[in-house]
Amino acid sequence: MTLEAQKNQFIGCDKPYSQARAVVFGAPYDCTASFRPGARFGPAAMRAESFGIETYSPRQDRDLVDDAAVFDVGDLELPFGAPEPALAMIGALAAGVIADGKIPVMLGGEHLVTLGVVRELVKKHGQELRIIHFDAHADLREDYLGSPLSHACVLRRCWDLLGDGRIFQFGIRSGTREEFQFMKAGHVKTEPFAARTLTEALASIPAAAPLYLTVDMDVLDPAEFPGTGTQEAGGLRYAELLTAVLQVCRGRHVVGLDNVELCPGLDPSGRSTALACKFLRECLLALDH
Amino acid sequence: MTLEAQKNQFIGCDKPYSQARAVVFGAPYDCTASFRPGARFGPAAMRAESFGIETYSPRQDRDLVDDAAVFDVGDLELPFGAPEPALAMIGALAAGVIADGKIPVMLGGEHLVTLGVVRELVKKHGQELRIIHFDAHADLREDYLGSPLSHACVLRRCWDLLGDGRIFQFGIRSGTREEFQFMKAGHVKTEPFAARTLTEALASIPAAAPLYLTVDMDVLDPAEFPGTGTQEAGGLRYAELLTAVLQVCRGRHVVGLDNVELCPGLDPSGRSTALACKFLRECLLALDH
Amino acid sequence: MTLEAQKNQFIGCDKPYSQARAVVFGAPYDCTASFRPGARFGPAAMRAESFGIETYSPRQDRDLVDDAAVFDVGDLELPFGAPEPALAMIGALAAGVIADGKIPVMLGGEHLVTLGVVRELVKKHGQELRIIHFDAHADLREDYLGSPLSHACVLRRCWDLLGDGRIFQFGIRSGTREEFQFMKAGHVKTEPFAARTLTEALASIPAAAPLYLTVDMDVLDPAEFPGTGTQEAGGLRYAELLTAVLQVCRGRHVVGLDNVELCPGLDPSGRSTALACKFLRECLLALDH
Amino acid sequence: MTLEAQKNQFIGCDKPYSQARAVVFGAPYDCTASFRPGARFGPAAMRAESFGIETYSPRQDRDLVDDAAVFDVGDLELPFGAPEPALAMIGALAAGVIADGKIPVMLGGEHLVTLGVVRELVKKHGQELRIIHFDAHADLREDYLGSPLSHACVLRRCWDLLGDGRIFQFGIRSGTREEFQFMKAGHVKTEPFAARTLTEALASIPAAAPLYLTVDMDVLDPAEFPGTGTQEAGGLRYAELLTAVLQVCRGRHVVGLDNVELCPGLDPSGRSTALACKFLRECLLALDH
Amino acid sequence: MTLEAQKNQFIGCDKPYSQARAVVFGAPYDCTASFRPGARFGPAAMRAESFGIETYSPRQDRDLVDDAAVFDVGDLELPFGAPEPALAMIGALAAGVIADGKIPVMLGGEHLVTLGVVRELVKKHGQELRIIHFDAHADLREDYLGSPLSHACVLRRCWDLLGDGRIFQFGIRSGTREEFQFMKAGHVKTEPFAARTLTEALASIPAAAPLYLTVDMDVLDPAEFPGTGTQEAGGLRYAELLTAVLQVCRGRHVVGLDNVELCPGLDPSGRSTALACKFLRECLLALDH
Amino acid sequence: MTLEAQKNQFIGCDKPYSQARAVVFGAPYDCTASFRPGARFGPAAMRAESFGIETYSPRQDRDLVDDAAVFDVGDLELPFGAPEPALAMIGALAAGVIADGKIPVMLGGEHLVTLGVVRELVKKHGQELRIIHFDAHADLREDYLGSPLSHACVLRRCWDLLGDGRIFQFGIRSGTREEFQFMKAGHVKTEPFAARTLTEALASIPAAAPLYLTVDMDVLDPAEFPGTGTQEAGGLRYAELLTAVLQVCRGRHVVGLDNVELCPGLDPSGRSTALACKFLRECLLALDH
Repeated sequence: MTLEAQKNQFIGCDKPYSQARAVVFGAPYDCTASFRPGARFGPAAMRAESFGIETYSPRQDRDLVDDAAVFDVGDLELPFGAPEPALAMIGALAAGVIADGKIPVMLGGEHLVTLGVVRELVKKHGQELRIIHFDAHADLREDYLGSPLSHACVLRRCWDLLGDGRIFQFGIRSGTREEFQFMKAGHVKTEPFAARTLTEALASIPAAAPLYLTVDMDVLDPAEFPGTGTQEAGGLRYAELLTAVLQVCRGRHVVGLDNVELCPGLDPSGRSTALACKFLRECLLALDH
Repeated sequence: MTLEAQKNQFIGCDKPYSQARAVVFGAPYDCTASFRPGARFGPAAMRAESFGIETYSPRQDRDLVDDAAVFDVGDLELPFGAPEPALAMIGALAAGVIADGKIPVMLGGEHLVTLGVVRELVKKHGQELRIIHFDAHADLREDYLGSPLSHACVLRRCWDLLGDGRIFQFGIRSGTREEFQFMKAGHVKTEPFAARTLTEALASIPAAAPLYLTVDMDVLDPAEFPGTGTQEAGGLRYAELLTAVLQVCRGRHVVGLDNVELCPGLDPSGRSTALACKFLRECLLALDH
Repeated sequence: MTLEAQKNQFIGCDKPYSQARAVVFGAPYDCTASFRPGARFGPAAMRAESFGIETYSPRQDRDLVDDAAVFDVGDLELPFGAPEPALAMIGALAAGVIADGKIPVMLGGEHLVTLGVVRELVKKHGQELRIIHFDAHADLREDYLGSPLSHACVLRRCWDLLGDGRIFQFGIRSGTREEFQFMKAGHVKTEPFAARTLTEALASIPAAAPLYLTVDMDVLDPAEFPGTGTQEAGGLRYAELLTAVLQVCRGRHVVGLDNVELCPGLDPSGRSTALACKFLRECLLALDH
Repeated sequence: MTLEAQKNQFIGCDKPYSQARAVVFGAPYDCTASFRPGARFGPAAMRAESFGIETYSPRQDRDLVDDAAVFDVGDLELPFGAPEPALAMIGALAAGVIADGKIPVMLGGEHLVTLGVVRELVKKHGQELRIIHFDAHADLREDYLGSPLSHACVLRRCWDLLGDGRIFQFGIRSGTREEFQFMKAGHVKTEPFAARTLTEALASIPAAAPLYLTVDMDVLDPAEFPGTGTQEAGGLRYAELLTAVLQVCRGRHVVGLDNVELCPGLDPSGRSTALACKFLRECLLALDH
Repeated sequence: MTLEAQKNQFIGCDKPYSQARAVVFGAPYDCTASFRPGARFGPAAMRAESFGIETYSPRQDRDLVDDAAVFDVGDLELPFGAPEPALAMIGALAAGVIADGKIPVMLGGEHLVTLGVVRELVKKHGQELRIIHFDAHADLREDYLGSPLSHACVLRRCWDLLGDGRIFQFGIRSGTREEFQFMKAGHVKTEPFAARTLTEALASIPAAAPLYLTVDMDVLDPAEFPGTGTQEAGGLRYAELLTAVLQVCRGRHVVGLDNVELCPGLDPSGRSTALACKFLRECLLALDH
Repeated sequence: MTLEAQKNQFIGCDKPYSQARAVVFGAPYDCTASFRPGARFGPAAMRAESFGIETYSPRQDRDLVDDAAVFDVGDLELPFGAPEPALAMIGALAAGVIADGKIPVMLGGEHLVTLGVVRELVKKHGQELRIIHFDAHADLREDYLGSPLSHACVLRRCWDLLGDGRIFQFGIRSGTREEFQFMKAGHVKTEPFAARTLTEALASIPAAAPLYLTVDMDVLDPAEFPGTGTQEAGGLRYAELLTAVLQVCRGRHVVGLDNVELCPGLDPSGRSTALACKFLRECLLALDH
């Protein structure tokens, strides 16, 4: 008899790489996490849990098996400690995916990993790139405990690359006075506490502009998503986030996306991982519209 | 001195059987659970926890001790493994309760247990019976991994007995494309994601029709009810569910009800069991109106 | 070299006592807890967790470091068992703080500790004092299992001191029939289930009247705040509670406040403690307006 | 049809009171617990868990159903807060059991509950009574935070009643210098860290002397029994404790026993409760030899 | 660029099937579990956790990568509910592996799955087969709650196939009186509580006899292995079990083995899964000697 | 009234720095942890938990309050991510303590932090320094995923400084083949699996040689100490470790010590932290002999 090994992929994301439109990969790095680490276990938990969900979305009436072309390459094997080597490995993979004309879909890990992909997209798209950012935290610090490469600084590092007016933040409800002053000075466009202005934000962006969508899952209310390292009360509900993200993905030119900061060990009920899986399914189905 | 053993009953449900209008029993079966089992521990957890709640409902201004006549017979001792023997034992108890003119109130266990009671009610009421079904999942599959007797098929098995137009579903937000096509074909009446059409659904049912109310507790948002095996984000809030259920119970001819899929081990905070207890109190008080 | 020991204070609450306007202290007593004890660990958990939050409030655009004068004296070392010695120790500290013209801010512990502070404030303000009370439970029992000094009786004991019309309750959704009859008889003013009538309640109180604000954290929905001993579904959302409390604090004469019933061990995700820390920050910043 | 309510008794402990040789009851009091409370939930957890164990003991080749006569009366409903009312209720029940010539078997609750039974046995047996005490803690303090009625003082209170040389302690590995000086002064006979001298201790006691056996489950190593409030590394293994207890029970005149300080909430694996159930089974079977 | 999907195999078990001497597979079935289910998650947890262990064994000075030829085919997708279909699928895979002259190494799942493999080995080896069985439970019941196909009956079903004197049990410390009488009647050879007679047991078996080794991980003390559904205090230490198993594997004709009853959800510390991984590594290395 | 802030120190470790013989500090760094992070929370958890233990040691008949002179300076505020800045801060504090003629006692954090102190001691003592190392893991890798500064390499980095024959390891039971070959080549002296050769190891070291004692708490069996990131079955029992450490401390010239790798979040029972507190108490009392 002949037997093949089973593959370790998110459910329904088993199209061959060559035919894939989107490429999922995990970036299990959380070494600059300043509070509760554990986001490194996020992507593996999502793959394992994914076999408990349906591939069909009643919301979109689409199915990952029939209506999308996604390949999941698994987790990068990232070094621990200093962030630059990990970011370089993320960048190398993202660069290859981008060069092949596919959409990188990264599962964090902590939010700093976003920088690894954004640097590659900026190489291609320059300052045409816009970032749509859902998060509880501004992540706009110049540095954190002396380090400029921290999850708390990641959007500031993106701003270094993109400049004013290219970053649109929603749901932000925590940060230092300096970060909020940075927003108010107009360097980034931020809607604190909610995501009601998304429509007008999207309207202000040229239709053809390449968009990068980064979702720190802690933008959700901790009631719905407790499995994250720095929970901030007063967040979005899942239905709100889903509506917002579908609006971003559909009919716009999304060139990359990530879902970060799932920390499964903090949620013994497992519902955060379950939610993250369904949210990824919805993102992947929306991308492929 | 003389001492009697304490009884193991839900708080306030200690009227003699002969005088009871409703009869509570537990069906601790979860062997077809396809994801996280543990619903077998639901009814026992509810009885133990019930001594932490009040018997008085401010919402209804009624009290289990003074204003209701309920007897709790405890848990059935069900065999593990194959479902048919367990369903037969559930049916035997339900048949006796129904024959005595009382209302069976079953605490699951997984959702498949509903079939054990519904089969008996169909024997009595035939296709006059309607099922009001609150759930996150459609449970309408023809079979699941080859088995027709699975929690994922239970409403389909009820439809086998009742036929088109007898089942009304609310809150459904997960299923296969085939299940949603079955709904759209009109075999059952389903409101996905919410329960806003309950009033018109009830209006469409003859006032005298016997109703069976089955509540899979996972219809609630996992934020409010994490203690269930297959959590689906984007669910009902407790206040919505309570309003809906009171509307079903009051002034209608409810001939049986169940609350299923509490899986206490998945919620270390214990709030899911606490909620389930209060919800059962409200159901029992509403039933007896 | 010279080294000093680190202090054990809530973040940003390290002004000298002599310069402080508000004085935080912990009352780690939970011995009359009738259900799940553990609130004794609340204040210590909040101090440890506080170093994971920002001192800046985007909501109020104020910062604990720059815009408030708070001293945290730490936890009282309270005896276990009978409550009166513990209440006496709480009272002694509160009396000193009050005599120094500062605002006592107590972190429970169970709700009974409120009585220790209220007795001192009544000594100073007499029946001019009003209590604004957020809670899921009425806490209005004459006695509980024979004891008049129980968390379930604490507001009734306050009423003994203040008389009719001095206590305003919000969010109440659990109690005995007798407690609800006590409300309906007008002894206290209660809005069950919600806090929509706060504006009119405040309007009914003379502007100069001294207010005591007591927040049993279980007034929040257990989805947002599972870490409490007696969870009651159907509660307030954090945003609602925050809005209400800011309304109470700003421009009124708040002479004391407490946050009670955080039971950190019941919430392995840690989000209840995180929420409690941010809520305390907001209270302290609002107080100092 | 006729239905009876199920009883809430430890498995196999359902003989009628009148025929019972031993009477099990729960004393769910933990209000003087100075560290982690929760022992109040011990007896109820044991009853629920007991249905997962066999009634047969391979060690003793005896079975609770066939070879013992035990009645479980359930839990006392004890007031919270001050200990004396709870001790009085314990004493009242124990007095009745003793008067009927039966052996009281108490499930704690914290260790202070032992005093309630011992006081009654001293009324009957005077200073003939000996106490065999397994514990990690000496429990010999004169007072604790000012209170003489504390779990940390319970054996000292027993010594007040019995005087020198009547208390035999094993496994003790924690206490104050004063407690260890009290032992060394010869007031009680203590073997620290282990139970190797049990044989000689028993030999020093007249064969007909009435024995009270009190087992604080924290005498076990926390590896084997994590579910207790004050874990002390370096404890006995279960096999050692079992051998010791069988030696005490067999052929001696045991007039009462207790197992205290199971705190089920601290052990999510559930194995502490499982061990406690099997240990109780062994005690009950040994008692009846 | 070209990317391949990652495989989902136990670390170091990635030799091609055709070259493998041992074939690992998971049998995630736990539907007859009578107490706490969850063993279905065992094999997947082991694969995920295996990347935290070394492939090198200091005990054996051998390495899975260099010194063994193992292929892990992943988990079978077994139906829930009735056991026979699941056993048939297990048997089909095992039959193929056996026919190819390889050693099946099964990861449970509950203990009933053993029957699926043993039936195939009996087809090949007949009553020459011996079973070496480490377990806390005898598993010798004729039936359990009416069902002959239950984890509690699995060794009895094996005895049905093999007859007297073919089954050697070690570590047994729980069962009914009937099960212990069955042992004492000589049908199986059982050493209760320990594994000190293994050497003489092996000596009594012809050197060339084919051996099946089944290890219910609950043979270990729950202190060392809490992650199993039915914990029995007083078990073997890991070092004892390892020594015993190496003795069985080395120089004998082991034709199959299994490790069953890891229930990862019951052990939040994760050490049970870690132990199971290292134990499997040792078994695989010993097998290949 | 005047109030002082409470200090955040390990119980009994509140002597003034100038009078202290030993200086405790926390090094909450875990960013190179390759498996489960969380050791950063170790020192803070120990301080909080320390108020549940006695200051008196029955084993040594000494008391932290009366018989030792220890100052606890609290936790360093270390940056996250790259290790070198954190090691430099540790080194700076240790250097000051050493220069003042006091003994540094560090609480980790992951094991890499040891290097920060050892580098300073080597500056003072050169290759006279010996390291006594208790651990489950060899920590002798040349590099780990390309990085030489990893917890998995820390003793190898110490060997770089000290050379052959200066490091004595006990309890090691996990590592790569290369690490075990490094031991066998005689660069370090290792007793795998146990600590039976400690006496002869100490005898081989000159009596006046300065000793550094580093205890990775995972040397203990995970049954006794589950709260650590990389649990290895088959470890030492607490009593063995304690005996060994007292032997090292008494009558020898210990110039520094650390206890590392407590990861409190992995042990919901809290017993690992409790054990770590008692172990630190014993170390501090033994040091001061």
